[in-house]
Amino acid sequence: MDFAASGRPKVVIVGGGFGGLTVAMKLAKADVDVTVLDRHNYHCFQPLLYQVATAELSPGDIAWPIRHVLRKQKNARVLLGKVTEIDVAARKVIADSVTLDYDELVLATGATHSYFGHDEWEKSAPGLKRVEDATIIRRRLLLAFERAELAQDDAERERLLTFAIVGAGPTGVELAGSIIEVARQVMPSEFRCIDARTTRVILIEAGPRVLPSFPPHLSDYTQKSLERMGVEVLTSTRVTNCDDEGVDLESGRLQAATVIWAAGVVASEAGQWIGAACDNAGRVVVNDDLSVPGHPEIFVIGDTASAKRPDGKPVPGIAPAAKQMGAHVADVIASRARGAVPPRAFRYRHQGDFATIGRRSAVMKMPYLEMSGLMAWLIWCVAHIYFLIGARHRLMVAFKWVWDFATFQRGARLITDQRDQL
Amino acid sequence: MDFAASGRPKVVIVGGGFGGLTVAMKLAKADVDVTVLDRHNYHCFQPLLYQVATAELSPGDIAWPIRHVLRKQKNARVLLGKVTEIDVAARKVIADSVTLDYDELVLATGATHSYFGHDEWEKSAPGLKRVEDATIIRRRLLLAFERAELAQDDAERERLLTFAIVGAGPTGVELAGSIIEVARQVMPSEFRCIDARTTRVILIEAGPRVLPSFPPHLSDYTQKSLERMGVEVLTSTRVTNCDDEGVDLESGRLQAATVIWAAGVVASEAGQWIGAACDNAGRVVVNDDLSVPGHPEIFVIGDTASAKRPDGKPVPGIAPAAKQMGAHVADVIASRARGAVPPRAFRYRHQGDFATIGRRSAVMKMPYLEMSGLMAWLIWCVAHIYFLIGARHRLMVAFKWVWDFATFQRGARLITDQRDQL
Repeated sequence: MDFAASGRPKVVIVGGGFGGLTVAMKLAKADVDVTVLDRHNYHCFQPLLYQVATAELSPGDIAWPIRHVLRKQKNARVLLGKVTEIDVAARKVIADSVTLDYDELVLATGATHSYFGHDEWEKSAPGLKRVEDATIIRRRLLLAFERAELAQDDAERERLLTFAIVGAGPTGVELAGSIIEVARQVMPSEFRCIDARTTRVILIEAGPRVLPSFPPHLSDYTQKSLERMGVEVLTSTRVTNCDDEGVDLESGRLQAATVIWAAGVVASEAGQWIGAACDNAGRVVVNDDLSVPGHPEIFVIGDTASAKRPDGKPVPGIAPAAKQMGAHVADVIASRARGAVPPRAFRYRHQGDFATIGRRSAVMKMPYLEMSGLMAWLIWCVAHIYFLIGARHRLMVAFKWVWDFATFQRGARLITDQRDQL
Repeated sequence: MDFAASGRPKVVIVGGGFGGLTVAMKLAKADVDVTVLDRHNYHCFQPLLYQVATAELSPGDIAWPIRHVLRKQKNARVLLGKVTEIDVAARKVIADSVTLDYDELVLATGATHSYFGHDEWEKSAPGLKRVEDATIIRRRLLLAFERAELAQDDAERERLLTFAIVGAGPTGVELAGSIIEVARQVMPSEFRCIDARTTRVILIEAGPRVLPSFPPHLSDYTQKSLERMGVEVLTSTRVTNCDDEGVDLESGRLQAATVIWAAGVVASEAGQWIGAACDNAGRVVVNDDLSVPGHPEIFVIGDTASAKRPDGKPVPGIAPAAKQMGAHVADVIASRARGAVPPRAFRYRHQGDFATIGRRSAVMKMPYLEMSGLMAWLIWCVAHIYFLIGARHRLMVAFKWVWDFATFQRGARLITDQRDQL
C-alpha cells in the first residue's frame, strides 16, 4: 500500500477509543505515519452508553466512524480488523484482515466486564461496554414490558417487571436511575394490562456503599436520591449466582427477568499478545513513560494499562485518564521522531468523578469542589455535550435531551433483532 | 385481561404499518375495543428506509413504538406477537404469545420482496422492506469500502467497489442515487488506499425503462439524471442468477460484492391464514368494501389486498393506498358498531407518484401536475417530513437533512453486529 511507503516511522495504534484516538490526533503534525486499527469502524462515547441501553439515544448519536474523525489528518489511516497476534521480535501486528509492520506500537484496547470467574453468567446478565451491549440491554428492557403486558399470571408479571443491576459504581447508578424513570414516567400511559409504576429496580452492591470512589456523604446522598425515585438499594450484598430467572443473593433469591452486570472489569488481552507482566485485572504493568518494560517501542494506555499516580494509587479506568495517557504517549513518539528529548514520566491529573442520578440530579467530586443535585446535573450535561466529537452530534444530543426532558419521552425504543423474542 | 372484558365489539388488527395504524387511529371514537398485534414493537416509516440503508438516518428516526403512537387512545391496546394461525370458524387469532378473540378482524400485514422462485438469492441480494433489512444493507455497504481499503489485488478491490441494484422502481432509483453520493461525496476524503470515486453503481431493470409507473419522459429524465451522477443504468436486462460474488445478466457476468434486491414484491401469508383466494402475487382478492368474500367480519388492506380502482387497474402497493383503505375499513367498522349504514364501496384516489434521485432532484407525477428537478425534491422533503409521526421525529429528520446537505456528511455510519465481518 502506498500509504506506509513513505519511509517515516510507522506508528500502529490498536484501538480507536479515547486513548488510541487521542494518540492519533496528537500526532497530526509529527513526521510519522499513523495507522489506527480497530475491530469496529466507530469510536464509541462510552460515558453515554447507558443512555442507549435505556432508549434515550440512538447508537448513531454516540458513535461515529473513526475514519471520519481522522479524515483531514493526512498522516493517518484507519483500518478495520481484529488483532490475532503480535510478533514482538519482528515488530508486526497480525490481524484477521491485514498484517502491519510497526516501529512504534500503542495498545489501547480497553477493558470488558469481568464475572469474577463466572463467565457463564454473561448470557443472563449482560454488561455494558460496547454499542452491541447497549442494544442487547435495550432489547431486554423493552421486551420485559412487552412480555409483562402479555403475561397470564401474577408471579410471572412481577418477575418480568423486576430489574436487577449488579454493581453500584457510576454505570450501575446511572442505569438504575434511568430504568426507574422509564418505568414510572414513560411507560404507564402506554400499557393497558400492567401498571408499569409497580416496576422494581434493585441495585445490588457488594461493598458497603454506592459509588465507592466518591466521598461517603455523596454516596449517602446518591443512595437517598435513588431510593426517593423508587430504586431499592442493597449494599453489602454479594451475588452468588445469575441465571435466566433471576439472581441468588447471600440473603436469598431474587426473581428478576432482566439482570444487568455493572460490577467487575477486566483488561483486554493485549498483555497476552506481547507476553507482558500483568496485574490481577489483566492490565499491563507499564514504565513511568507508559512503555512496556524491555520494549521502549511498545506503549500500553487506557484501561489496559496498570499505571500509578504519584501517590501510589492506581490511575482509574475512565475516559479522561485514557486521554491523558494518549497525549503523553503521542508526545513521547513525536519527540523521538524529531530527535528531541522525550517528556518526563507520565503524571495523571485527576479532574474529578461524576455520576448522574436520573434526570435532574448528579454528584460531582473535583479536587477543590464537591456538588450534588440539579446544578451538578446541569454541569454534567454541558460537560458531556462538550466532549462529544463534532457539532452535529452535540446539537443532536442536546436537542434530544431538552425535548425528552420537557416531554418525558424516550426517543429510541426499538426492539430490533428479535432473535430471543418472546 | 381486563381490557377486552367490556362487552364491546372486539376489533383485532394484525399489523401496525400504515394501513393497520390508520384503522386503529380512525376508530378512536368508535364504541369498540381495538387490539393491534404486530411482530415488531414499532411502526416503520418505509418511504425513508433507503436512507437508513445508506447511513443518512438512524433506525430510531423512522421507526417508533406503536404503543407510543396510540398511548392516548383509551380504547386501543398494542400487543407484541407473531401470528401463527387464524381460526376463522371460532374467530380467534392465535399468535406465539397470545390468543385473541375477535368480532372483526383486519389483516394489514404488508408485503415482502419476491425472488420469483429463487429464494436462495436472498442471502446474496437482500431486499429492503424492514428495519433489519436496512441495517443489513448498511452494514454491507460500509463493509465493502472497509474491505476494499484492505484489499491486496485490483480485481478484488474493483469487485468490492461495485454495487448492483436489481429493479429500477422508486426504491432502486433512490438507493442507486444515494449510494453513488456516499461513494463520491462522503467517502473520498476518508480513505487512503482506495479512490472511492471509482465506485461503480449499476442499476439493473428488466423492463424497458426506469420508474415504469411514471410517464416515459420522467423515466427518461430520471435515467439521464442518474447517469450524470455516475450511475450505470441497464434497462431491458434480466438477472439470471445472484451469488456472493456478483450477478449473472443475460448479457454476461457482473462481479459485484454488494447486490441489493429491489425488484419483486409478494404479499404476506395472510391469505393462507384464512384460506382465502389470492392473486398470483399472494394478495387476497377482496370485496369492494375490502372484506373477504364469505367473511364480512374479516378485512384485508394495504399491500396484502388485491383491490381494484374504478378503471379496473390495481390499487398500488404504496403508503397512501394503505392509509385510504385503513380509513375506509375503520368507517365500515364504526358504522356497524353504532348500527348505521356502512359507507359505499372503497374508492381509491391516486394522489401521485414520487421518487428522489439523489440529494437535489426528484420526479413527481400527480393527477394534474408533473414536476422534476430541485423543486420536486423540495416538495418531496417537505411532504415526507410532514408525514412523519410526531414533532420530535420531524425536527430531528429535518435537522439531519439540512446539516448533511450542507456538509456532505452521513450521520449513521455504524457497522454494528459484525457476524459476517471480514
